[in-house]
Amino acid sequence: MITVKKEVLTDLGSRLLMEAGVSADEAAWVTDCLVRSNLQGVDSHGVQLLPWYVNDFVNKKIQPGAKIEILKETPVVTIIDGFNGFGYTVARQAMDVTIQKAKKMSLAVTGVQRLHHIGRVGRWVEMALEEDMIGIASQPGGIFVAPWGGIDRKLPINPVAIAIPTGSGSPFVIDFSLGPIAGGRISILQRRGMNVPEGWLIDEDGNPTQDPQYGVSKGAQLPLGQAGLGYKGYALSMVLSVLTGPLIGAYSMTQHRPTGVFFGAIDINAFMPIDEFKQGMDDMVADIKSSRLGKGFSEILIAGEPEYRVQQRRLAQGIPLDDSVWQELINAAQKLKIDTSGYQITEGGVSLHPSYTLKDRYE
Amino acid sequence: MITVKKEVLTDLGSRLLMEAGVSADEAAWVTDCLVRSNLQGVDSHGVQLLPWYVNDFVNKKIQPGAKIEILKETPVVTIIDGFNGFGYTVARQAMDVTIQKAKKMSLAVTGVQRLHHIGRVGRWVEMALEEDMIGIASQPGGIFVAPWGGIDRKLPINPVAIAIPTGSGSPFVIDFSLGPIAGGRISILQRRGMNVPEGWLIDEDGNPTQDPQYGVSKGAQLPLGQAGLGYKGYALSMVLSVLTGPLIGAYSMTQHRPTGVFFGAIDINAFMPIDEFKQGMDDMVADIKSSRLGKGFSEILIAGEPEYRVQQRRLAQGIPLDDSVWQELINAAQKLKIDTSGYQITEGGVSLHPSYTLKDRYE
Repeated sequence: MITVKKEVLTDLGSRLLMEAGVSADEAAWVTDCLVRSNLQGVDSHGVQLLPWYVNDFVNKKIQPGAKIEILKETPVVTIIDGFNGFGYTVARQAMDVTIQKAKKMSLAVTGVQRLHHIGRVGRWVEMALEEDMIGIASQPGGIFVAPWGGIDRKLPINPVAIAIPTGSGSPFVIDFSLGPIAGGRISILQRRGMNVPEGWLIDEDGNPTQDPQYGVSKGAQLPLGQAGLGYKGYALSMVLSVLTGPLIGAYSMTQHRPTGVFFGAIDINAFMPIDEFKQGMDDMVADIKSSRLGKGFSEILIAGEPEYRVQQRRLAQGIPLDDSVWQELINAAQKLKIDTSGYQITEGGVSLHPSYTLKDRYE
Repeated sequence: MITVKKEVLTDLGSRLLMEAGVSADEAAWVTDCLVRSNLQGVDSHGVQLLPWYVNDFVNKKIQPGAKIEILKETPVVTIIDGFNGFGYTVARQAMDVTIQKAKKMSLAVTGVQRLHHIGRVGRWVEMALEEDMIGIASQPGGIFVAPWGGIDRKLPINPVAIAIPTGSGSPFVIDFSLGPIAGGRISILQRRGMNVPEGWLIDEDGNPTQDPQYGVSKGAQLPLGQAGLGYKGYALSMVLSVLTGPLIGAYSMTQHRPTGVFFGAIDINAFMPIDEFKQGMDDMVADIKSSRLGKGFSEILIAGEPEYRVQQRRLAQGIPLDDSVWQELINAAQKLKIDTSGYQITEGGVSLHPSYTLKDRYE
């Protein structure tokens, strides 16, 4: 593990992307999103993705320029073609449109077809939070989940994010897959030789297994729900698959899967004075937190609160990265002939050398 | 068990309510909703509720006249005061408003404060289906569910319904509580001396239990999710609690709970041509159904399909009722001096006597 200051990753990420040919604005935004994931402790969606993006950009799998086209719209609905641009810049524009329409019309939803990876889906609902709105974002992800009663991978893992403002403390932010476990987390368990908890996975023949070699490329994940209740998770998964698929013209009949991204925003002020709403939220949160604790728990948290706390800590202390991730970034930098002498490595970790200025390359 | 024809229950229910003082229109609508629940096999929300409603109406706990007032509205949002009228007539008006606004504006949502029982929440999204729209409806229900990490009942059971049109076969209709088990189903298990499956309930001290004396008035239900995943069900429960609570001005700070009902409708045609949408749905359903079967399953069904099949059968053959439920209805009829000689009991069950006409009392 090596601890790297946020500023270093922000600088290095932007320079990597710019050196690969990405515009300064896009490079800064993509990097900002990645570093923010690391800050929140969601390292699977952090700077470790940079070498992949650089590669896809160089190989023209990502289209530059963040072009979007509105295919269809009403005052509250927008259907967008993202032309396989950087998911981050397409998603930002899509969520911007959604928020602007929600400001005028109380609420709005947007569907996007054709875009590259959008990273941590929670990023997009944070944009709604900044406007005191409720936000929702969902994408299909991999087809990993079996239907209720079946044993084949048929349903997407359904990453979904929902953010709701609170009056004090952490905002409420859901940012998880509806299915048991994202592919990235399975690979981590596999690398570390660890088991998956009971009731999450089945093997090729439908037998229960805890072996993380299953659940992504073979076997399947079971839908959300304890014994006998998987039909609920299965049904909710179909709803999300409709929002990211047939509803927004992003369903592939050849691959039998949804392929789009769905965004929504609700302007709370159109319903209730925001202060009254936040009072209700704070009361609800306080009441929930007043429950007696279960065995093994020291506190009751709301969705998003663990990430919120990690962010406070990492902003102050820096971001711990696997040595291999840091090395890959440095390797990518060397390949692109990027001068990294402005980063100093001390006992406390990697920080910007006091004499290093961000210059006009990256702001 | 006694098998009763739909027509008998429709006639008897309407007359019971009218004799208690309910207007003909309201009596017919409430009864229609109840009988439809029986038809779908959801007997907990069927005609067995009639004696309760008659009682509450006579005791002025239900206000007659189906008065509603719009407290606040925008082109897509409506906040309604239901003045504690029959939930069925208030909900019908609220969903009507929602659908009309969705027709104009692509989508719409409505919150209702103060209304009596709305019965099976699936009834309201069926209204959206009739217009080729996606519908959503949710109410809080009892506070039965513990938060993730806690052992006290803090969260509502969250009955929720979501309907999505399909091109052929059964439409997709979610109609369940997000929490493990509705209070009505727990009492049935308790009466029959049966256990609840593992992982659903905890006792007063937070220990796992399968005893259905827990989960409603003591102990608690665990949020949706297999081992280690209850945080997902917990978070989704908070989202539904916000929609039925603080967002629509229906959150009680003294009882720390949501108290309203939330409705939504999405006009699919504003997004995609409805035929194209339905093609996508049918392809998705066919693909899911093509999965190999798990042990103990003979078929893969989509949400709403079991109820759809029961309805086909019960329309043809009649509705099986517990003898005690039928007796309670007859008792209530006798108390109100209703002539039931027009119902004939044969080996095949209860049907209308050929000479019996519905007269002008009930249509």
